[in-house]
Amino acid sequence: MTIFDTITQPTLLLDAERCRANMARMAEKAKRNDVRFRPHFKTILSARIGEWFRAMGMTGITVSSVAMAKYFAAHGWTDILIAFPVNVRQIEEINALAKILHLELLVESVEAVTFLAERLLTEVDIWIKVDAGAHRTGIAVDDRAALLALAKEIRSHKNLRLRGILTHAGHTYKAGSAEKVKEIYTECVGKMVAVRQVLAGEGIKGLELSWGDTPSCSLVEDLSEVDEIRPGNFVLYDVMQAAFGSCRTEDIAAAVACPVVARHHERNQAIIYGGAIHLSKEYLEEDGKRHYGLIAMPNEHGWTAPIPSAFVSALSQEHGVVTLPKEVLEKVKVGDLLVVLPVHVCLAVSQFAAFLDLDGVIYPIMRPEARSE
Amino acid sequence: MTIFDTITQPTLLLDAERCRANMARMAEKAKRNDVRFRPHFKTILSARIGEWFRAMGMTGITVSSVAMAKYFAAHGWTDILIAFPVNVRQIEEINALAKILHLELLVESVEAVTFLAERLLTEVDIWIKVDAGAHRTGIAVDDRAALLALAKEIRSHKNLRLRGILTHAGHTYKAGSAEKVKEIYTECVGKMVAVRQVLAGEGIKGLELSWGDTPSCSLVEDLSEVDEIRPGNFVLYDVMQAAFGSCRTEDIAAAVACPVVARHHERNQAIIYGGAIHLSKEYLEEDGKRHYGLIAMPNEHGWTAPIPSAFVSALSQEHGVVTLPKEVLEKVKVGDLLVVLPVHVCLAVSQFAAFLDLDGVIYPIMRPEARSE
Repeated sequence: MTIFDTITQPTLLLDAERCRANMARMAEKAKRNDVRFRPHFKTILSARIGEWFRAMGMTGITVSSVAMAKYFAAHGWTDILIAFPVNVRQIEEINALAKILHLELLVESVEAVTFLAERLLTEVDIWIKVDAGAHRTGIAVDDRAALLALAKEIRSHKNLRLRGILTHAGHTYKAGSAEKVKEIYTECVGKMVAVRQVLAGEGIKGLELSWGDTPSCSLVEDLSEVDEIRPGNFVLYDVMQAAFGSCRTEDIAAAVACPVVARHHERNQAIIYGGAIHLSKEYLEEDGKRHYGLIAMPNEHGWTAPIPSAFVSALSQEHGVVTLPKEVLEKVKVGDLLVVLPVHVCLAVSQFAAFLDLDGVIYPIMRPEARSE
Repeated sequence: MTIFDTITQPTLLLDAERCRANMARMAEKAKRNDVRFRPHFKTILSARIGEWFRAMGMTGITVSSVAMAKYFAAHGWTDILIAFPVNVRQIEEINALAKILHLELLVESVEAVTFLAERLLTEVDIWIKVDAGAHRTGIAVDDRAALLALAKEIRSHKNLRLRGILTHAGHTYKAGSAEKVKEIYTECVGKMVAVRQVLAGEGIKGLELSWGDTPSCSLVEDLSEVDEIRPGNFVLYDVMQAAFGSCRTEDIAAAVACPVVARHHERNQAIIYGGAIHLSKEYLEEDGKRHYGLIAMPNEHGWTAPIPSAFVSALSQEHGVVTLPKEVLEKVKVGDLLVVLPVHVCLAVSQFAAFLDLDGVIYPIMRPEARSE
């Protein structure tokens, strides 16, 4: 009798041992580099798993929405950075949080700063979001005039405490190699250090540097130039991170067990109950072939290494089409379980109500959108 | 004061009037063709919206999982088809449902039939899933030997009542034109009628034909050759359906209101709080450009027509990057709302806890995965 005997529908599995090892490895690296470690909880979305960080001595966390901040606040976290350009429409919830805990917010425009200065009822720490090359959002790291103007604006308001400059170097996700990730880190941190000097020369002294993204935090050994790291994905890792070299496939700590409902020997495919609403439509392209996850088999200890040439080749709402080597498909029966290693674990986790660990323990997951609840 | 004044975070909007008009139009078409209308509830996922179908006289519904069947059963539906190859691992839940309501199941293998024959505690209606060209799953419609063997196997068990042949012609989603959708319908229904004749010649008489998919049910006027239609998406429609010609953009009855959190005039982009966990990563490619949704503006009556050349050009977990014409972006401020028309509404709906209609009424949505609840 294993946990697999109890599984009847698509189920998010957690390998707790791997998860804790991933946490401990990053915590140790942060300690070694003497940088503050503020893990991003958007990946785990589970207060119960968050407790493992607390047991390792973490007190501050990162989240990416007010909803997440409220959820983790309700579970006893009192030092929370919302690493998302502040959503001014949620000012009432922000004020409610700032009243009961140490809250840090992100800004990138004078209009947001002016709004906060007028409407915040409590002093709050403020980070300036800079774009170090990802071109998603933030003030360009080399736009020194804009950065200086914003920093001065923040400093001019008594209820805003300017903490520093924050970036998420999301372009490491497109780097293609470990070497290139390291180059991006060196280049971007160099630019942030330079900007900090320029601002210090203009009288804006004492700024800290906060750095995100799992690929660089996983691959760079010397992180000592920044003051804070905020990786999230590393807690679980996934197929995309393994493709970057951020982790080994044996570090991947979450997977989705899916029942087989049909087989098509003529095209070497099995159909699983497990679709876009479980795995998300995030994909990887390897050798010109698109896939939505790798396939492993359940075993006594969790799941096997990924089966070579086995992958989720198509997804609809609830169906997954799994392409398998002929000899593997021949052994698979309707009613068996296959284990899918997701391409992007953050999106897969956000689809589920809970993780199930290999001992059968359930870890409830917050629902990202909670309007009606 | 409109509902938009109350919105603080990504919110799934429902235009109830359009939704009911979509329902009524399809119900009328089914009536005119004298075919049974068994709407697929995987799109709405909301018992409260389902009531509108009941008010129109519908008594039977389609769902795509046991979880959905349980949810709608709990809301008073007593005639439910689970249009997904039966997941034998859920036999206990299936038996519990079959005991209290009229349940219909889908099979496509002898192994599933044998399993059901042994384990079902109540007589259940059974449909054979055929693949009419979508090549997702089902027995190939021209594999007459396999279909005959399976039909005979089903008929040999007293607790299985063979109802007919069912297909979902998902390849209409790749048709590219209304004409091609109609051709697919004619060709596939022709094959199903032919197979039914062959089976009747072998003594398997009285089989019904059940037909799914929104593009063909929307575009084909004469549906009289089938016995049952099971479209789902048509209730809300989306940008993908509008691209096929299944609907007009003014028929789209659901959208996601998202707060603007940043602007980047140098690249004509706004950043919204609204990402992959709200819209899903389903995309369309038009003129070589990929997008994840079209953009409209809130107005007194709901939302405007889509703004030309305005679209969601990138998505991460919570961020959406919206590309806008320069003159539109100039009028948008941080804190404003943009309305995103999703590419694939079924996946967007499944991300939310509720719809909000234009009068401020909330329609709770079931959570597709409910293991921990």
